[in-house]
Amino acid sequence: MRLFDKVAIVGVGLIGGSLALAMKKKKLARKIIGVSRHKKTLSLARKNRAIDEGTQDLSIVRDADLVILAAPVKTILRLAEKIAPLVKRDCVVIDVGSTKEEIVSKLDRLFSRYVGTHPLAGSEKRGINNADPFIFEGSLCILTPTKNTDPAAKRKTEELWRKLGVRVVFLSGRAHDRILSFISHLPHLAAFSLIGIAPRQYLRFAASGLKDTTRIAASDPGLWADIFLSNAGLLKAVSLFEDELRKIKSAIKSKDRSLLIKILKGAKKKRELLE
Amino acid sequence: MRLFDKVAIVGVGLIGGSLALAMKKKKLARKIIGVSRHKKTLSLARKNRAIDEGTQDLSIVRDADLVILAAPVKTILRLAEKIAPLVKRDCVVIDVGSTKEEIVSKLDRLFSRYVGTHPLAGSEKRGINNADPFIFEGSLCILTPTKNTDPAAKRKTEELWRKLGVRVVFLSGRAHDRILSFISHLPHLAAFSLIGIAPRQYLRFAASGLKDTTRIAASDPGLWADIFLSNAGLLKAVSLFEDELRKIKSAIKSKDRSLLIKILKGAKKKRELLE
Repeated sequence: MRLFDKVAIVGVGLIGGSLALAMKKKKLARKIIGVSRHKKTLSLARKNRAIDEGTQDLSIVRDADLVILAAPVKTILRLAEKIAPLVKRDCVVIDVGSTKEEIVSKLDRLFSRYVGTHPLAGSEKRGINNADPFIFEGSLCILTPTKNTDPAAKRKTEELWRKLGVRVVFLSGRAHDRILSFISHLPHLAAFSLIGIAPRQYLRFAASGLKDTTRIAASDPGLWADIFLSNAGLLKAVSLFEDELRKIKSAIKSKDRSLLIKILKGAKKKRELLE
Repeated sequence: MRLFDKVAIVGVGLIGGSLALAMKKKKLARKIIGVSRHKKTLSLARKNRAIDEGTQDLSIVRDADLVILAAPVKTILRLAEKIAPLVKRDCVVIDVGSTKEEIVSKLDRLFSRYVGTHPLAGSEKRGINNADPFIFEGSLCILTPTKNTDPAAKRKTEELWRKLGVRVVFLSGRAHDRILSFISHLPHLAAFSLIGIAPRQYLRFAASGLKDTTRIAASDPGLWADIFLSNAGLLKAVSLFEDELRKIKSAIKSKDRSLLIKILKGAKKKRELLE
């Protein structure tokens, strides 16, 4: 069922490409145009039938009914300034950035029909080569409307994600970033650190434990540097993490087995809620 | 091909049970006896045909040619004292404990034909129910002979693991513990901490990142408390980890994007060596 006439997806990587494929599959748009700096990405996206048309020229957004900014956080901020003077007044603009507070506060001012979104899907892989129309199915998407958000734009954005098989949750940008600190950004930071300090000559002894714990450390460094820099709440989560490490260290130092077991039991119980 | 006549496996959990199944499969022993405090474990192990006989009575080790101590670290230390006066002089004794320095230094004195071993296999699951004869295949087993180790016992232990499809590496107990700090014990400590500080009401937002990073936090608290307490090198690895977290925090605070990218790139490169 068609929701939009002409859709411009700016950034045709893992998420942008998967969105294009999923929208095609569900016939949610008449025409999908991909915008990328890279000709190769565009030709791949066309070959995959993710997009109907590809261009390096941002001005294509002029007659779009929906613009999706599917890029790393900093790039979204930069792109938003460039396209703000170009889009139609009634064009719905959404982004899929991994942090929301900074982006929402800026894009809310730049566009009359903007809604911040963050699909909690994806992986450490990137690029149109890994795009998958089913990546969103059964996952969660956080929408971050503000008191300024146009109700029709909010409704349409919610409908778009629901049609892609996603459960939608509404949060403020700040709440989003605080939650993501704990469930994604700090775990990434910890994973990068764990593998970062592991002596190279020890890696041949690595079993599934280290592999699972650090899988997300294979994620894109530029993308994650920007996420770390734009989540104002992250440092607080890191501090809590450091406190917890200190607590365990001190239990080890004082050989307090029952305290240690109590801490680990609490963690295990919480972990069991996850699956 | 039979390597041992009568084998006693003390502790018939995930590792002990898997060892029994694997040794049966390869016909490495004429008779395998399981020793456990739990009658239910013994009857399950008999039903699974992992063992020929089950008993709660440790004195069964008297006429064993091989005794395998397959228990948590502290239990191995306790069991070793109990069986030392019982075993035959030429009985080969091995353990599969997760830390080695403390165990090796003690068991080396207690037994004339002892070899420390640590198969780097297993999972966050436990118990005879999860035993699997193929768990060791293709994995690594670290053997920790000392200058006192009986050469014939060392040779036979090496042969046992090789026949189970395992690559064998020789290390000192101390080197083993240092390496395991980085590739297993610290990652577990970090995983317990990550999930431990995550607010319960945020868990419904968890995607694959948090799930993978903290999978090993579902491991057994008692087992892991003992590993943490018996690895003297672990605190040093935790300190290095804390230094790395501080480095990233300071790069975030000073908004040093290029330093951040440099750190994350180094980590990603190392992660890519793992698979």
